[in-house]
Amino acid sequence: MRQPQALAFDVFGTVVDWRSSIIAELKAFGRRHAAHRDWAAVADSWRAGYVPAMDRVRRGELPWMKIDDLHRMILIELLEAVGLTSVGADEIDELNRAWHRLDPWPDTVAGLTRLKQRFLITTLSNGNVSLLTNMAKRAGLPWDCVISAEMFRHYKPDPEAYLGCAELLDVAPGELMLVAAHPSDLRAARSAGLMTGYVVRPLERGPGRPPPRYDEGEFDVTATDFLDLADKLGRFGRENFR
Amino acid sequence: MRQPQALAFDVFGTVVDWRSSIIAELKAFGRRHAAHRDWAAVADSWRAGYVPAMDRVRRGELPWMKIDDLHRMILIELLEAVGLTSVGADEIDELNRAWHRLDPWPDTVAGLTRLKQRFLITTLSNGNVSLLTNMAKRAGLPWDCVISAEMFRHYKPDPEAYLGCAELLDVAPGELMLVAAHPSDLRAARSAGLMTGYVVRPLERGPGRPPPRYDEGEFDVTATDFLDLADKLGRFGRENFR
Repeated sequence: MRQPQALAFDVFGTVVDWRSSIIAELKAFGRRHAAHRDWAAVADSWRAGYVPAMDRVRRGELPWMKIDDLHRMILIELLEAVGLTSVGADEIDELNRAWHRLDPWPDTVAGLTRLKQRFLITTLSNGNVSLLTNMAKRAGLPWDCVISAEMFRHYKPDPEAYLGCAELLDVAPGELMLVAAHPSDLRAARSAGLMTGYVVRPLERGPGRPPPRYDEGEFDVTATDFLDLADKLGRFGRENFR
Repeated sequence: MRQPQALAFDVFGTVVDWRSSIIAELKAFGRRHAAHRDWAAVADSWRAGYVPAMDRVRRGELPWMKIDDLHRMILIELLEAVGLTSVGADEIDELNRAWHRLDPWPDTVAGLTRLKQRFLITTLSNGNVSLLTNMAKRAGLPWDCVISAEMFRHYKPDPEAYLGCAELLDVAPGELMLVAAHPSDLRAARSAGLMTGYVVRPLERGPGRPPPRYDEGEFDVTATDFLDLADKLGRFGRENFR
């Protein structure tokens, strides 16, 4: 394996546990409104609405919209669908910013802290810059910089997002490794010439829902979490990597 | 005074002492080549070439070029001017990356660390992303994110740079304070609707060269260094700001 110069991390599901965080925020919202709903299902629908909404932007059916705005559009539809139609705009904004307050997986901060000693580490997320920055500040994610699809006005898996990240970091695509829990993201990155690191997140979609399939050897590295990733990339490490 | 939500920092001269760092790198380069020159003058010329080069990009006379490329173009001219014409491309690249290795002012890291407790802190520099990220990693600058003119393909003082920064942070221009040691940068930021914080850096251009003039009360805050800035903005602080 070649030696990556920089690691770019997918965020939702890879770095943070969006599902538990969003369910907890929706439940608290429900308690404030004395509204009993299947909030786990609402969380899953919120997330499920995100790829089709981005795809509308990617196909040009919608103008460029940041994820905050796409999330808000989906949320309003979902609240209407569960019969909550009288929620004020400020409260919708506050609930929508739940995506800025996602909790990291238990290994995330320790793993990133180790990886940062050896590599430049950045986000490469479809989340907008303010979302990613607020999230990092709250959760203590030690990014060297914050790179978002918003900077390229191209959502992953458009190649512009992967290549734009390499360009900003001034590395060749083949010197940049995308780290993600999603084979589809990694396959698009590989097509753009990036290295790939797969981290399995078996609980991303909730208990009992297996992660997507991939082929043995399909990615440059496969790891069980960020600490395992640091161990595996450590083989290539400088002396200050431990 | 209103309350800023975020602070965007000019970098060269405001956060880092470019002059001492560049002189030291040029002197080491000179020793390697047994070349005795007035390296302080070369450093000043290197820096002096930067604004005219950016202005050529701003006027459209040059295509978009990142600062690394502008610095390299100027460096080659300067080395020729002092009679060093046989330096290899790799060594020129290495010397050019001296701008990635600038040292912070003595108060910088402690001041930013305090300010970060209360505000979102970012760069807003004409330096390219890789330069700013490498600099932060080496010097321990605790940015929440790294924002560069490169993301807008507009150099300061174009208004697109100031407004683009506010847009990425999802704050109104009037909620964003530019912090800079350069009145001209601050005046352009104010024209774009930003708040302004002036930090005096009396040694930026070397001993005995006074900083540029400004009018009393021209900027929202004036501070002697980043610790003084933290004290002055602390009046508006949350309880966790100290």
